[in-house]
Amino acid sequence: MNIKPAVKVLEWVGDAGEGYLRLLDQTLLPLEQAYVDCQDVRTVHDSIRRLVVRGAPAIGVAAGYGMVVASQAIDGDEFILSLEDAGEYLKSSRPTAVNLEWAVGRVLARARKATGEKTETIREMMLDEARQIHAQDEAMCLAIGQEAAGLIERSTGVLTHCNAGALATAGIGTATAGMYVAHASGKVFTVYCDETRPLLQGSRLTAWELTQAGIDAVLITDNMAAVVMREGRVDLVIVGADRIAANGDAANKIGTYGVAVLARHHNIPMYVAAPHSTFDLNIASGADIPIELRSSEEITEGFGKRTAPRDVKTYSPAFDVTPAGLLTGIITERGIISPVNESNIRKVLGL
Amino acid sequence: MNIKPAVKVLEWVGDAGEGYLRLLDQTLLPLEQAYVDCQDVRTVHDSIRRLVVRGAPAIGVAAGYGMVVASQAIDGDEFILSLEDAGEYLKSSRPTAVNLEWAVGRVLARARKATGEKTETIREMMLDEARQIHAQDEAMCLAIGQEAAGLIERSTGVLTHCNAGALATAGIGTATAGMYVAHASGKVFTVYCDETRPLLQGSRLTAWELTQAGIDAVLITDNMAAVVMREGRVDLVIVGADRIAANGDAANKIGTYGVAVLARHHNIPMYVAAPHSTFDLNIASGADIPIELRSSEEITEGFGKRTAPRDVKTYSPAFDVTPAGLLTGIITERGIISPVNESNIRKVLGL
Repeated sequence: MNIKPAVKVLEWVGDAGEGYLRLLDQTLLPLEQAYVDCQDVRTVHDSIRRLVVRGAPAIGVAAGYGMVVASQAIDGDEFILSLEDAGEYLKSSRPTAVNLEWAVGRVLARARKATGEKTETIREMMLDEARQIHAQDEAMCLAIGQEAAGLIERSTGVLTHCNAGALATAGIGTATAGMYVAHASGKVFTVYCDETRPLLQGSRLTAWELTQAGIDAVLITDNMAAVVMREGRVDLVIVGADRIAANGDAANKIGTYGVAVLARHHNIPMYVAAPHSTFDLNIASGADIPIELRSSEEITEGFGKRTAPRDVKTYSPAFDVTPAGLLTGIITERGIISPVNESNIRKVLGL
Repeated sequence: MNIKPAVKVLEWVGDAGEGYLRLLDQTLLPLEQAYVDCQDVRTVHDSIRRLVVRGAPAIGVAAGYGMVVASQAIDGDEFILSLEDAGEYLKSSRPTAVNLEWAVGRVLARARKATGEKTETIREMMLDEARQIHAQDEAMCLAIGQEAAGLIERSTGVLTHCNAGALATAGIGTATAGMYVAHASGKVFTVYCDETRPLLQGSRLTAWELTQAGIDAVLITDNMAAVVMREGRVDLVIVGADRIAANGDAANKIGTYGVAVLARHHNIPMYVAAPHSTFDLNIASGADIPIELRSSEEITEGFGKRTAPRDVKTYSPAFDVTPAGLLTGIITERGIISPVNESNIRKVLGL
């Protein structure tokens, strides 16, 4: 089984010596579908920094290929040293992105193991490692999708929030994975996409990628989710997660917690879909997950023009935490954790 | 007790013969505070149609004064007939606004009663009638505010949705009335204003008018309401209503129902504030209130630029219905209805 998203977020074009990383330019979505061809490490760095590519898994894959691009400008005795410098430079593009650091380290380690080989050979091994990272990400998404597909197949209306989609991974996404798998098997259903203020990822990205794939997507404002549930249009909610604590409390884009409360009120199952790497078992509960506060401008000038009074006070948390008790289950590539509690998490993840 | 909003939504300037209606131009808020001086009936019509003035009570008051403006261009034998034509013309500016029709009819009736008097005298009586409509609206708001002030005085954080504020009335608003009264008595509290997508009335209007009045207002996106409640920042919710059924089910701006579910989950009291004229006792329950569906563009192009894929499907109800069971009470100018049920509604309203 091999299900591809309708649009390639990234791909490697050509061979290790002359090839390059091609990125879908997500800053131009949904109105324009254009690509950035990264032929030097500066362009890779810039693309990650400018959110041409976004989403922890996709950033990791891009960084792996980015190391191959970097290697093309390097040769001679100082090859590994120069490669390490390039890795540091790439990592500085999004300092808090854990997957970025991890992928850079992995490709670098493969290069170090090949020390003594011809530069050409080392580059080929690095490309092989980057391709493995890519393939593993695709496989992770597909495995989540296969776990989730059964839930989608029993549904007629699904609601999602933000974008934990194909655009955030190198595969078919996490929250969206089951949708793509069920769609491929011929199942017909509707996905209600919360627009997800302030940055509108649901509107700009999720509604776009689902529509591209031929899935019936309906865009709503965040404050319409409740009435959509009350009218019986939705019988399943699936969202992604940024970080999950040992007890199953899940941090995700602002608004997710509200959706979870609404789902509970309407007796609608509420799932998080996320790979095992999203779990941080060193964090006991959601109370220990730090929440970033964002600038006023994202609320007051989020659409290219000011829509709020000058100097108005705002409160703008980027994420919220949904307590495990409001989750029906967490869908991982290793199985579905349900009910959500620490012992089930450890059992399903094999930790 | 006489509490004025910080900004005059409308006022009559001058005498009946030479005066005019001055309207705050709400289409320019929150960035600019400018006025439209209506010296002829066409300008009044245009201002109502373009939402220079908005909100059922404010539209009614404006229409009353609009009839006086219209009368200034009329004289002679056909005075009443011409006035009736002007009334029809004014009513066509917002055909579904019940208050508009009611106010036009009231001023017209006063003119008819004065038939035989000098035109000058009739105009003075018409202005007197328009001023009475204005004063009654102010008094209605103040009475709601006095009923609600006690609730605000026991709170430190209040959440409201959309704009049922001074800007929608000729007085201190409905949902906001208690805030202005409590503020005038020195009480310090914070009002969280949902921005209220798609049209951002909370951001453009409520956050603006409260800030103008010196009330501590904090703007949030609609999907932040849940976490604001969870964090204990809010201990009271007050919203307006467009129509209330005999059983207390209340139709209001889209998103209100979701706020009510969230308030219930967090054990926060949820009140509607509305004058008795908002009740429609011919409607048994909210199921019989028709809900207008709005155009896609309000979601996809609400900010002067397109923020969603071309041809994306949307679902955009303008209102939702909050069941009486989720309301702690309804604050009217005749008292607070609590618990909300038909017999209490009839008792408090004296119907």
